[in-house]
Amino acid sequence: MGFRIVTINREFGSGGRTIGKQVAQRMGVTCYDEELVTQIAKESGMSQSFIQSFSEEASATSSFLFTLNNWANNALSDQIYITQRKIIQDLAEQGPCVIVGRCADYFLKERTDCLNVFIHANMEFKKDRIVRLYGEKADTPEKRILDKDKRRIAYYKYYTDRNWGQAANYHLCLDSSVLGVDRCTDLIYSLVEG
Amino acid sequence: MGFRIVTINREFGSGGRTIGKQVAQRMGVTCYDEELVTQIAKESGMSQSFIQSFSEEASATSSFLFTLNNWANNALSDQIYITQRKIIQDLAEQGPCVIVGRCADYFLKERTDCLNVFIHANMEFKKDRIVRLYGEKADTPEKRILDKDKRRIAYYKYYTDRNWGQAANYHLCLDSSVLGVDRCTDLIYSLVEG
Repeated sequence: MGFRIVTINREFGSGGRTIGKQVAQRMGVTCYDEELVTQIAKESGMSQSFIQSFSEEASATSSFLFTLNNWANNALSDQIYITQRKIIQDLAEQGPCVIVGRCADYFLKERTDCLNVFIHANMEFKKDRIVRLYGEKADTPEKRILDKDKRRIAYYKYYTDRNWGQAANYHLCLDSSVLGVDRCTDLIYSLVEG
Repeated sequence: MGFRIVTINREFGSGGRTIGKQVAQRMGVTCYDEELVTQIAKESGMSQSFIQSFSEEASATSSFLFTLNNWANNALSDQIYITQRKIIQDLAEQGPCVIVGRCADYFLKERTDCLNVFIHANMEFKKDRIVRLYGEKADTPEKRILDKDKRRIAYYKYYTDRNWGQAANYHLCLDSSVLGVDRCTDLIYSLVEG
């Protein structure tokens, strides 16, 4: 069987980005995550921070409704989305890679060489992870996780009309808090190898 | 790591039952599916057909609203549910096994030795499978699939207040139409082995 491309959607704090990097390392290919913002900036001529304010990772310092309003009423938001789609589709054409977030599963849904993965975890695991690894403040980690994911859920729904985290949208969904981050990497890589 | 018990929820036609039986065979344990109805009948003193009319597999010959009404307004339905929970929890205590459907993931959610799996597939795969393997009429397989799953979704929601097919409710979700039935069995068994 085997897959050339892996897309990873993930709950904040689930270790999905780490899993993506580990899988890419095992495959000997690039893992596109923050790198995508740089590419979108380059292609669109907009600044990185401006692009981030319109993305699924829109800063938590702006309110959720402000962020949603940004997507819904701004032609620039659509332009960024279209540039993002083009870059992701071009990357997939160029060769094997791993892409984290940014609706990549949706953009590449017609490809048969693409494995779409969703990583989730229980709240305790995610809270511990963001405090320990990302240095988030220990007093409000749950709020921070829910807020981050709320934006991802809304962004995915707004642009794809799909429900984020619904098993039917992915080929493989893994609970990293029960299976472990390294075991998730092993499982995904075993499918890539075929 | 390793798991002693595997629960499998599945879309109708996805091959989830076959996967359950294959995993059980590899583990050298029993796969409980229809066998559960026999046990519930024995324990409750009710007939098998009567129990089935109140279950997630309620006959498609009765209307969906009639079935839903059966669950919501009948003390017998709750009694069957409670007997079912007791039997499944007892089975898990007795030793390793595989249990297909019947909210087993929910009944065993406190156990750390239980792997909860959800199997889904695209419509073409499911249609082909139920016509080829179960001899369903070839002219309305999609309606039959949607009707079956509608009952499972409603039953699961009514009794567990959870959304069926939401990745967060399972440790592992697999698309059997993309990964293949045998590969799904391999993946689950590799986790059971630890």
